[in-house]
Order: sequence, then C-alpha cells, then structure tokens
Amino acid sequence: MDKILIEEFERIVGKPNVVTNIEQMQNYLVDETPPSVRPKPANDLALIRPADTQQVSSVLRLASKSRLAVFPRGGGTGLVGGAVPTRGGIILSMERMTGIEIDEANLLAIADAGVTLGRLAKAAEEAGLSFPPHPGDENAQVGGLVATNAGGSRAVRHGVMRNQVRGMEVVLPTGEVLKLGGRLHKNNVGYDLMQLIIGSEGTLAVITKVILRLYPKPGATMTLIVPYNNRHDALSSVPKILHSSTPLAVEYVERDLVERTAKRMNANWPVKTGRSHLIVMMSEPNRDQVLSESLKVAEICRENTNYETFVAESKSDQDNILRIRSDIYFALKSETMDLLDITVPTAELEKVMGEIENVATRRAALLEVFGHAADGNLHVHIMKKEGEGAKYVEDLRNEIYEIATRAGGVITGEHGIGKIRTKKLESLMTSKEFELMKSVKRMFDPDGILNPGTKIPA
Amino acid sequence: MDKILIEEFERIVGKPNVVTNIEQMQNYLVDETPPSVRPKPANDLALIRPADTQQVSSVLRLASKSRLAVFPRGGGTGLVGGAVPTRGGIILSMERMTGIEIDEANLLAIADAGVTLGRLAKAAEEAGLSFPPHPGDENAQVGGLVATNAGGSRAVRHGVMRNQVRGMEVVLPTGEVLKLGGRLHKNNVGYDLMQLIIGSEGTLAVITKVILRLYPKPGATMTLIVPYNNRHDALSSVPKILHSSTPLAVEYVERDLVERTAKRMNANWPVKTGRSHLIVMMSEPNRDQVLSESLKVAEICRENTNYETFVAESKSDQDNILRIRSDIYFALKSETMDLLDITVPTAELEKVMGEIENVATRRAALLEVFGHAADGNLHVHIMKKEGEGAKYVEDLRNEIYEIATRAGGVITGEHGIGKIRTKKLESLMTSKEFELMKSVKRMFDPDGILNPGTKIPA
Repeated sequence: MDKILIEEFERIVGKPNVVTNIEQMQNYLVDETPPSVRPKPANDLALIRPADTQQVSSVLRLASKSRLAVFPRGGGTGLVGGAVPTRGGIILSMERMTGIEIDEANLLAIADAGVTLGRLAKAAEEAGLSFPPHPGDENAQVGGLVATNAGGSRAVRHGVMRNQVRGMEVVLPTGEVLKLGGRLHKNNVGYDLMQLIIGSEGTLAVITKVILRLYPKPGATMTLIVPYNNRHDALSSVPKILHSSTPLAVEYVERDLVERTAKRMNANWPVKTGRSHLIVMMSEPNRDQVLSESLKVAEICRENTNYETFVAESKSDQDNILRIRSDIYFALKSETMDLLDITVPTAELEKVMGEIENVATRRAALLEVFGHAADGNLHVHIMKKEGEGAKYVEDLRNEIYEIATRAGGVITGEHGIGKIRTKKLESLMTSKEFELMKSVKRMFDPDGILNPGTKIPA
Repeated sequence: MDKILIEEFERIVGKPNVVTNIEQMQNYLVDETPPSVRPKPANDLALIRPADTQQVSSVLRLASKSRLAVFPRGGGTGLVGGAVPTRGGIILSMERMTGIEIDEANLLAIADAGVTLGRLAKAAEEAGLSFPPHPGDENAQVGGLVATNAGGSRAVRHGVMRNQVRGMEVVLPTGEVLKLGGRLHKNNVGYDLMQLIIGSEGTLAVITKVILRLYPKPGATMTLIVPYNNRHDALSSVPKILHSSTPLAVEYVERDLVERTAKRMNANWPVKTGRSHLIVMMSEPNRDQVLSESLKVAEICRENTNYETFVAESKSDQDNILRIRSDIYFALKSETMDLLDITVPTAELEKVMGEIENVATRRAALLEVFGHAADGNLHVHIMKKEGEGAKYVEDLRNEIYEIATRAGGVITGEHGIGKIRTKKLESLMTSKEFELMKSVKRMFDPDGILNPGTKIPA
C-alpha cells in the first residue's frame, strides 16, 4: 500500500495501531469459516485499530478519497467469510473500542462496537440485569453481532439481535456519523435506516456503538433433555411445547453426535437413552415457576416418548449441557467442508431433515445435522469425503438449498451471506428485489468500498 | 377524474367497487386525527376496493401509468392524517381483503391487509393461541398496523408491531409483487427490505398480506392499579418494576382524568385513592404464577406509596379497567386540538412531565397527559382554549417537541409522522440522514404516487 497513505493512517490512529506486515496480522485474515470454503485473503493489507468514532470517521474519509476497500472486523467468529479481507485495502478492527455503560434506569446497555458478548452479558449481570440472548461465541463483538443480525439458540423467547437493538451510531463511507434510534423503546420518526443496517454485514456503514435492550435479572433456570426413539417423535413435540410455553431455547441434537462431542471434550453427556434428543432451556422468575413450567413441558413431551426427561437444575449441570451443545461445531470443524444454516417453517423441519437424509444416502455423503428446532434453523455440516472436492460440496449444497427453498425456507437464518454465499443470492429472489437491494448498497456506499464481495455486490 | 380511467378501474375491481361520488365516500376522507389539525381531503377522488393482490397490482400499474396519487387505506384509525387523501387521485381501501389463516404448527397468522385487529386476536384465540399485543383500536387493519409500526400499551413484554412481523406481500407502485420474509423465525438472506416497509406509512409499497407471530394461549392475567400521592412517586416505581418483572403493560394515568372518562361512559373507576395511578397488566402461564408475580410487583410499588394496590382478577373487572383506559382518547377527543405522542428514555419521563407542566402553567394551557410509562411514550392532548387557534397549537407543540428531543427522545413513538408532522421532520435529523430517507422513497416510488404528503416527501 502507498506509503504516504500509511503515514496518514498512522497520524489518525497512532503508529502502533497501524500494522502493515502481513505476518503480524495472520489472525485478522481468517474467521471461523471452515477452511475448505473460506475465501483466500489478499496480500496488500493494512490493519488499522481506531480508538474512537472520530478516528473511524477519519479513516473512512481517507479510504473513500483513495477508493480503498475497508473490511470492518469484530471478533472474527463469523462462519461465511464475511470478515475475510479478500482485496487489497484496510482491515478496520474495532477491538480497541470497548467502552460500555449499563443504563440501569432504562434497562439498556450502551456498548462500543468492540465489546464482546461475554463482557456485555457480565456487565448486565453485575448491574442486576441480564442479556439472555446468546447469539454466538462469547468472543463475538457487539458491532459484528448487530451487523450480522446474529441469532443463536436463545432466540425462541427473546428473538434475534434485531429485536434487542434500540439505537446505534454508525459511520458512513464518507466519514459522516449517523446516530439512529436512541435510548428508546418506541420510535416511528422517519424510515428506519437502523433496521436496514442490522444484518447488512458491514456493507452499508461501520457500526461504532449500539444500544441494546436488557432484561430483568434472571430468576431460575432449568435445562431439560428429552430423549426420543427417533427424529419424528422429537420434532413432533416442538409445536406442542410452543403452544403451551415459551422456553429460552429448544434444540435438536442426535445422541451419537453429542456423545462424540462430549468425549472429545472429556465431558459426559448425561442422557444415555434414545436416539434423538431435544434440549429445552427454561427460564422463569423463580424456582417454583420454572419447576411448574418444566413439568408441563416434560408432560407434553411424554406424549411422544416413553423415556424419562432428564432435568438439570444445578448451574454446573446446565453449563455442562450448554458447553457440549456449543462445542458440536468445534468437534466437527476439522472434518467439515461446509457448514449450512438453512431455515424453514418450524413444522417443515421433519420433512426437510428426511429429504436431507435421502440426499446423503443417495450421494453416500456424511452429513451431520442439528439445530435450533423451535426456529426451524438447521445446521448441516458437509463432512470431508475421501477424493471429493469443491464440486462435491457445491452439488450437495445446492441440493440442500433446493430442499429448503421448496419448503418455504431460506439458505441462511443466522450466519448470513458473507463472501461465500453471494453467488447464490440473485437466484433466490425476483430481479426487482435484487435491484432494490443493489440500490440500497449504492445509496449508502456508492463507491463500493465497504466490505466488498459481501452480501450484496456493489 | 378522467372517465376512461374510471372505466379501466371498474374493469379491474368491478363496477360496484369503484365509487366516484364524493358524498358516498365521506367515511374514507377522514381518520381519527383531531379535526382541528386533520388535513383537508381533496375533491377529485375515486374510492377503489380491490378483492385481491392481483387487482391491487393492476390498479397500481394503471395509477403509475397515469401518475395518479394513491392513498392506501386500512381501518382509518390513525391519528396523524396518514390515511387522509389530500390530493386528487384514488383511495385504495383494503377492506375486502379479509382472508386469514392460522398456521397452528408454525404459530403464525397469515392475514390479508384488511383483517382487523379484533378479528386477528379472535382467530388466534379460537386456534388455542394468542396475539397479545394490542396496538390500537380493534377496527384497525393489519396492513395499517404494520405500515405504521403500531405500538400500544402491551408493547412492554412483546414489543411493537415490527417485532411480530415475519413476512409480507407488498405491491410496488409499478404493480410488481414482492414476497418478503416468510413463515420463518430467522432470515438473514439479503438486506431486510421488509423492515424498511414496516413503519413507512404506505409511502413505499402497498402491503397486501402479512405473516405475524402468534404466542401460546394466555395463561392467567391480573390487572393492578397502584395509587400514588404524586407523579414522582408513581414514575419512580417503573424502573423498579421492570428490574424484577416484565408485565404486558405499565400505564400511567391521573385519577382525575380516568374518573372523568369513566363518568362519561357510565362506568366506574375502581380506585378512589391517590392522585397518580399506575396500571400494571400481568400475564403468566397460570394463576399461581400470575399471583406470585403480581404480589412481587405490588411489594415493589409499596416502596413508593402507602396506598393499597387494587387487584382485578375477574375478566369483567380487568376489561372494565382496560375499556376506561382505552376510552381516554375518545373522552378528550372533541375538546382536543392536537394529540402528541412523544417518546423519551423511560427514566426521563418524570423530568419531561414536569417540564410539560411548566409550559402549561406559563402559557395557561390545558394539557391532558397520560401514557405508556414503561415505554417512555407520552400522549399529550392540547385541549381547546377560548380564542386560540393554529398558532397556539403550533407554539405549544414545538415547545413540547423541544422538551422531548432535549431529553433524548423523539416526537413520535407510535402514531407516526402522517401528513401533519412532515414539516417538522427535516429539522429532527442530519441532512445526510434526511437525504438517505429521500433516496429510499425515490428507490421504491420514483414518481411519488404512494400516499403523497406523508412521512418523507418525495
């Protein structure tokens, strides 16, 4: 990159916060996308770490002037290559922007983009409040969580990130700063540009600050594991549960997979019966209530299974289950060629899983499937197969996408489009809809400098 | 209007569904906006009542070709003149589009734009589910509720309309039909155009169908009235309540006003103590739980008052309270010059109400104030005053807006901008933000035919 440009960046953020040696920025060139589908990073890059919104603004103004690609970067926990810098330009890491204020009176957190999910949850807790959603890895940063509209398992009761955002500060490619929304629970003033930026994956503006809703301190929680003979019985329970109760989470896993995951972690999956398990996380204001709701759910599940429901009440037992469930991805990662994130109407899950199984059989493919059952959100790992490469993955992926869309679903419920799903995008909508999305991109980022190659191509 | 055009519209929707006699469309020329600020309707209008999306599409295509203004119309329950047809053109009433399907397995309602809120709630109930939000008059139609991102009192737990929408079908001014979202609880495919249309007040597209989230059947509810000596004591309770519990609704009213309202209705407000009342609506899975949560809330409130909390448990007692609360608007309507809808951070409510009171004293103005306390959403009625007219209203309104924005608030939390607040809009944001909003409008409606004069001017 041009030396004079580098010096200008150094003047803005300070010399120690501009890195140009590619060896020293290896961690910034990847994200959690499986290596076999992860895009290749560019070489001519500068890593820039601004300290505040003013610096972000100055950096963007300079980048705009120089038509330099800008890759905003949060925790790098994405799964679709969204944060990988695939062109020469700058990586704009938000890691130094870590201010957080808990506004107790308004039940809000005001967090700089670089605050991690773990820190947000902890800060809320310390103030006697809570942030119950758990939209990903605890090292994810709030800017990225909002930019990708992250979901996660605990979206059943509280919804995805979009439902938590009350306000944000963003910087446009020109360096202009916009403050959208506020410390407000209702706002119907203009068109809601904030909603457009949520889920735009860093392609419209750089998020520097977010205002998030907090909730009362958690009362009592319980985690149930309900074992079933088969997938059909397990998934048939889900609508029945949701008709009577709204748990934090309802997850579908297969025992074989969670046991393998547990083994790898030297942990122990506590339920040895049944082939298919539902994990139901309950949260109610106090112990009596969580017990009463949990009993109700267990009773509903009993219509579809003869196995006993396992009830975890101690924090350590509940944490153990959550840890194993969260580790499935890491257990599979090294053998995963691609990880899909299809989402279908909840009631279509069983049919869709059956069709995916047929594809696996027909193609002699190894697929590992689990997901957020109540959200209809399935993660399908396409596992490595001797002698198979990119074409194998693409064919499988296309078949699975086709199954999802035929069932009224979409190719991504939470991971987003990133850089590895953009090719598919245009075929998923009418030309008019695609044209409108391209207009949105041009409106915010006419020169296409923000996270190029991601979501909607400029 | 041109006779040939009228005949073309008649061919599309059938002769009985085109009305050109202005005497026969009087109900379609107004909405619930107080008459003294309500915009004047135009004269040269045709009322068109399409039966389905295809007809809406044909009507819009024809209107586009003829550059005819189109005023989409739902239940006409808006409070800012959004549905008033202020230019020659057509009124597009959705009243005949009343299909509704309850998708029990996916906990969704799929409703045509003309389905009323009352019918939606009833249909959900009949299927053993519920639609707990209550964003306005029961005659409001779902198309309008989504187009205006309606709020209402029961937004504390479940959020505003935006949080309920999972999908929609809309028709663009060109007649093109877009299907956005779906029967899905998570969706991160493209830019979320659906979110842009929610709250756009009929200026970007005509909503023909919406997919809304439903909830489990209601368990048990209780309504508390907590009397306080004064506003300060009442409002200081609100954050304390929200730190421990998430009621359906937390409303602030003054006893004098609810008693006057009750008297007008030949009803009886059940609490005779205190000057300021909080109405807290509780809903929990069963009676034990609602009792336990209600006791907890009552105990928290006791820190700020010595009066007994009144507990309504029977359906008729609860309905009586809700009916009186909902009727405040109608009790005041005939004497109201303008009804404001400011929204501020919840914790600023007390200060803001104090400042509004000072304005009233200084200007010898009669203002009636009540609101959705937990949402920071205040309704301020500017009441008629002998010898005062438009200038008086405007001066008061501007002072109150100034108080709200200084406190970090906005001029509308739920009613929207409509046609009577557009003048103010530009001054409430940076020029860049306003420019982006104008680009959004041009993107969807380049000829500015959709609901002209509303929200963002073309």
